[in-house]
Amino acid sequence: MANTDNKYPLLSTIDSPADLRKLPVEELPRVCQEIREFLIEELSVHPGHFASSMGAVELTVALHYVFDTPYDRIVWDVGHQAYGHKLLTGRRDRFSTNRTLGGLCGFPTPKESEYDTFTAGHASNSISAALGMAVASAMQHDQPPRHVIAVIGDASISGGLAFEGLNNAANTPNNLLVILNDNDMSIDENVGSLNSYLSNLTTSKKYNNFRYKLYRFLKHLGLANDSIKGRILRFNNSVKSLISNEQNIFEGLNIRYFGPFDGNDLLRLISVLQDIKDMQGPRLLHLRTIKGKGYEPAEKNPSEWHAPGKFDIHTGERLDNIEDNSQKPPKYQEVFGETLLQLAKKDPKIVAISAAMLSGTSISIMQKEMPDRVFDVGISEGHAVTFAGGLAKDGMKPVVGIYSSFLQRAYDHIIHDVCIQKLHVTFCIDRGGIVGEDGATHHGLLDLAYLNAVPNLIVSAPADPATLRNLMYTALECQDAPFAIRYPRGSCGTLDWDTPMTSQPIGKGRMLSQGTDVMLLSIGTISEECTKAVAMAAEKGVSCAHYDMIFLKPIDEDMLRNAANTGKPIITVEDGTLNGGLGSAVAPWLLRHGYHNPMAMLGIDDKFVEHGTVAQLKQLNGIDPESITRQIIKSAGK
Amino acid sequence: MANTDNKYPLLSTIDSPADLRKLPVEELPRVCQEIREFLIEELSVHPGHFASSMGAVELTVALHYVFDTPYDRIVWDVGHQAYGHKLLTGRRDRFSTNRTLGGLCGFPTPKESEYDTFTAGHASNSISAALGMAVASAMQHDQPPRHVIAVIGDASISGGLAFEGLNNAANTPNNLLVILNDNDMSIDENVGSLNSYLSNLTTSKKYNNFRYKLYRFLKHLGLANDSIKGRILRFNNSVKSLISNEQNIFEGLNIRYFGPFDGNDLLRLISVLQDIKDMQGPRLLHLRTIKGKGYEPAEKNPSEWHAPGKFDIHTGERLDNIEDNSQKPPKYQEVFGETLLQLAKKDPKIVAISAAMLSGTSISIMQKEMPDRVFDVGISEGHAVTFAGGLAKDGMKPVVGIYSSFLQRAYDHIIHDVCIQKLHVTFCIDRGGIVGEDGATHHGLLDLAYLNAVPNLIVSAPADPATLRNLMYTALECQDAPFAIRYPRGSCGTLDWDTPMTSQPIGKGRMLSQGTDVMLLSIGTISEECTKAVAMAAEKGVSCAHYDMIFLKPIDEDMLRNAANTGKPIITVEDGTLNGGLGSAVAPWLLRHGYHNPMAMLGIDDKFVEHGTVAQLKQLNGIDPESITRQIIKSAGK
Repeated sequence: MANTDNKYPLLSTIDSPADLRKLPVEELPRVCQEIREFLIEELSVHPGHFASSMGAVELTVALHYVFDTPYDRIVWDVGHQAYGHKLLTGRRDRFSTNRTLGGLCGFPTPKESEYDTFTAGHASNSISAALGMAVASAMQHDQPPRHVIAVIGDASISGGLAFEGLNNAANTPNNLLVILNDNDMSIDENVGSLNSYLSNLTTSKKYNNFRYKLYRFLKHLGLANDSIKGRILRFNNSVKSLISNEQNIFEGLNIRYFGPFDGNDLLRLISVLQDIKDMQGPRLLHLRTIKGKGYEPAEKNPSEWHAPGKFDIHTGERLDNIEDNSQKPPKYQEVFGETLLQLAKKDPKIVAISAAMLSGTSISIMQKEMPDRVFDVGISEGHAVTFAGGLAKDGMKPVVGIYSSFLQRAYDHIIHDVCIQKLHVTFCIDRGGIVGEDGATHHGLLDLAYLNAVPNLIVSAPADPATLRNLMYTALECQDAPFAIRYPRGSCGTLDWDTPMTSQPIGKGRMLSQGTDVMLLSIGTISEECTKAVAMAAEKGVSCAHYDMIFLKPIDEDMLRNAANTGKPIITVEDGTLNGGLGSAVAPWLLRHGYHNPMAMLGIDDKFVEHGTVAQLKQLNGIDPESITRQIIKSAGK
Repeated sequence: MANTDNKYPLLSTIDSPADLRKLPVEELPRVCQEIREFLIEELSVHPGHFASSMGAVELTVALHYVFDTPYDRIVWDVGHQAYGHKLLTGRRDRFSTNRTLGGLCGFPTPKESEYDTFTAGHASNSISAALGMAVASAMQHDQPPRHVIAVIGDASISGGLAFEGLNNAANTPNNLLVILNDNDMSIDENVGSLNSYLSNLTTSKKYNNFRYKLYRFLKHLGLANDSIKGRILRFNNSVKSLISNEQNIFEGLNIRYFGPFDGNDLLRLISVLQDIKDMQGPRLLHLRTIKGKGYEPAEKNPSEWHAPGKFDIHTGERLDNIEDNSQKPPKYQEVFGETLLQLAKKDPKIVAISAAMLSGTSISIMQKEMPDRVFDVGISEGHAVTFAGGLAKDGMKPVVGIYSSFLQRAYDHIIHDVCIQKLHVTFCIDRGGIVGEDGATHHGLLDLAYLNAVPNLIVSAPADPATLRNLMYTALECQDAPFAIRYPRGSCGTLDWDTPMTSQPIGKGRMLSQGTDVMLLSIGTISEECTKAVAMAAEKGVSCAHYDMIFLKPIDEDMLRNAANTGKPIITVEDGTLNGGLGSAVAPWLLRHGYHNPMAMLGIDDKFVEHGTVAQLKQLNGIDPESITRQIIKSAGK
């Protein structure tokens, strides 16, 4: 560690925020500098979320300096911004294990550290969770009073959950401090009227500075106390809104508003935090920060540098970009995006909806050519689905592209606003199954189970890009019903993805290979591992038939009957929870129809899966080719 | 019908809104009067939602008079307020069938009428759905331009989904008109800072009237056009906010705001609607109405008259209230509420959270004695759960009481904000199973399926009040984990509900009756029907064992083994979807453990269930005692 100590003379002495708080305030800018250098060096070789954390370095240092963490609670929203926080809270030496199996999690997680106060993988939950902590503290009469701070980005605050939290915060006794870390950038460009609103607030920055100084001056003279301060602030806000033609939403919700301040101005920020930390009642501090701050290439292209992969520190060249991709199979995301565009070109009724994931889902491909037919509704999965319901009700064919684990936010909307009415909405569910490095909050393992319970919904999962295309074509051009198509993150495995599209018969699977000893049924792209397993089993003398179900609902009863009629053992394989999904649909069917084949079910046990590579996690959960092979041989009794 | 015609001389001539629009405007107050008389007469004998619809009579008449329905779209939010709408849209003669099997649905539903534009059972979806319709219309260049109007109550607008809709409305080209029907009353008292905000807006009513008149005057002079109007309004709002110490949230979101106006002043309302109907861009019209308007007892006690049951028209006496309830078994809701209070008295860490359903869930019982330990967060199920997560994280024991079908809104919050962290949150899931008259949107039929998929969650359903109490005691005092307890609406069946509480062993069921021919497994209160069926089967010479599983997860494997080891046919019975739930958990367990008992599964097929009485719907879905008996006899092969 001597080398590290020389490189980071201050940072290397900070094993916890208590160490940070011992430093004189004038040393802190140097700490920020070292955190940035450390992050640049580490992330250039161990890829992760880059630009958000770079922008939040001063905020991180200021929070741990001013507040008594971990007694005081910092609740990070999403936590793309929390790498600096991890470095200051005893995880510097393990930081190179970030996002690897058994290593640090890429997001704050209470499993890892008492400084990580709440799960932070899905956006917009910080205000509600922090409000709970603030109320818990007040009810337990904690002494000294505990400070609770939610740190939320300008994209996350547009989520309905954040609004619900703010709306509740003002009428519950609490001292919640909400810090709005506003870098005007989500992973994709920010949208929504709240966002325009936040941008406009900057125009009144001078005014706010004046107001803040006035308050400090009055306080210095002993003329400002907590009760009159509220009135002064409200009056000032009204003057401000007259001057700037602007309404303050937060004041409207009875949340005291401070800002906007420069969140990268460390000393100023510390002073502001010290001033407002002991005020009573819910408050919102609005900071403007620069995403990627301190690394020029990232400041210039913050979206691209959200999670840039490996890069050359000196040139800023993104090393994953210089590979020749022309001979590399595209991702499922790209196949989806290109197919969507092809279908949309032929059918003017097709529109696409993204919830702040235009590029992640590759809906951006359609957006580039048809910006008027693509709606990025921001982080609001529920609205995305209900909005699609309204579009479908009046004749459009909306495609909703959302990540599997985020679609959990829209469960009722799928049921109540689409499926009860059998509306023609196509759900393209991205990142189904194990996603890898993003870990427990991001795996799409519950979708098949929770979707199978919803009446009127067709539930499908293609095993290959051609079937993905056929399912999209079928959903949009051959059906008039709610239709879910679920596929994973990552390579589609072939350069020849641009196949002619044909109608996929609803509720019909296909036999991929014949066999006589064991009947294997799979759904989705786990078919690839199964195909390998079938070949490996064949080498050991076991003949395994392989059926690709394609549809979980309606399930292919003819195929089940054929498989069951052999009397041979049946194995189901899926990359999702075993509590629901394919195996849980097949077993009841078999028993209810009087079949008694021996049965084994491979999939994810009833537990949350941590982070690691997709291959590692498949192996750990028994759905890699070797594990499947072992089960085939076991089922065959050989 | 002659009699009816005499009683309602105008209303009886209106078979569709086109008839209404033929009337001279001065006749319309009389139409309103007749609608009220009709509703009072009908609802006094055929109970339904009363006070909301009474308050919205003028709004209903004005909307159908000013707009060209059904070409123009009215999207009612929740739709408690939509009875007048049903009367004017061809359903007057069938109104007495409201909420009965095969009759009218209590909520707007597109299945029933083209005037019902969208499913309206769960709150806060109208803005998103209407925005979809408005965008669809613009994209399809409908001529004449179609008007789309969302009518949302002040309770519903506090839901996160409504905020997401508003936030998206302002940056999408559309002419959406949002009408905020503000009666300052949800089913329970309204809460949240948005609500205080709306109440305060009234204080500036005079100012708004002035502003509106100014606009009309300028328009009359030809000085106001659409573009300068926006500026005038914004400037005026700023002046207003200075005068009234008030920020306009909607203007902050770039939604043009009009109001508040008296929504029970019909002629004024018509004039306002005519003025703003053809303006461009999203607008919000804020109306103040009186819940229960026109029937004095309801005006005085609007909460009690939300759904009053039968009543005496002349005295206002609620006839369901005058029965002697002292010798009537309490509802499960009351057992839950009293038990919660008993437990809370002994353990200061217990707090309760309701999402606008204090009295419906009976959390009101605890609230009366311990108002500081009960949080009604308003219509925001997601926040309710995440807030509970924060409370639990810092040492409290929150009980979240939410209706099963509304909990679908909080699915991700259960997963991400509670179960990943294994936080000590107790979910008391009310109205599980078939709820009866409220119909498709309100049945709690998916809960067992979607909860079973969530790792770390204990999922239980008591068969009787004593077990409900034991489960609550166990969840709060013997466990430190997420715990779901699901029970139905309605009578608990016994006066002796106040039993001593003991710990319920986790994952252990119980045998209710022994038997040798058939093994019946049930979960929850459908046990009652099963017990009857077992007795009826016994009369026919079939000996059926009855196991009450109590827990879906962890499931009682010893009990499954015992039942399976008999080699006899197994029947599972549940009042939930068969796509997930008990049968879907038992069948895989049997096959994976090498058991091949014949199996039958009783429960709800994969479909939405309409409205009717609970008994009728159980019969239709094959989970009444007779149907269960038939299956027992069939399984026994006798």
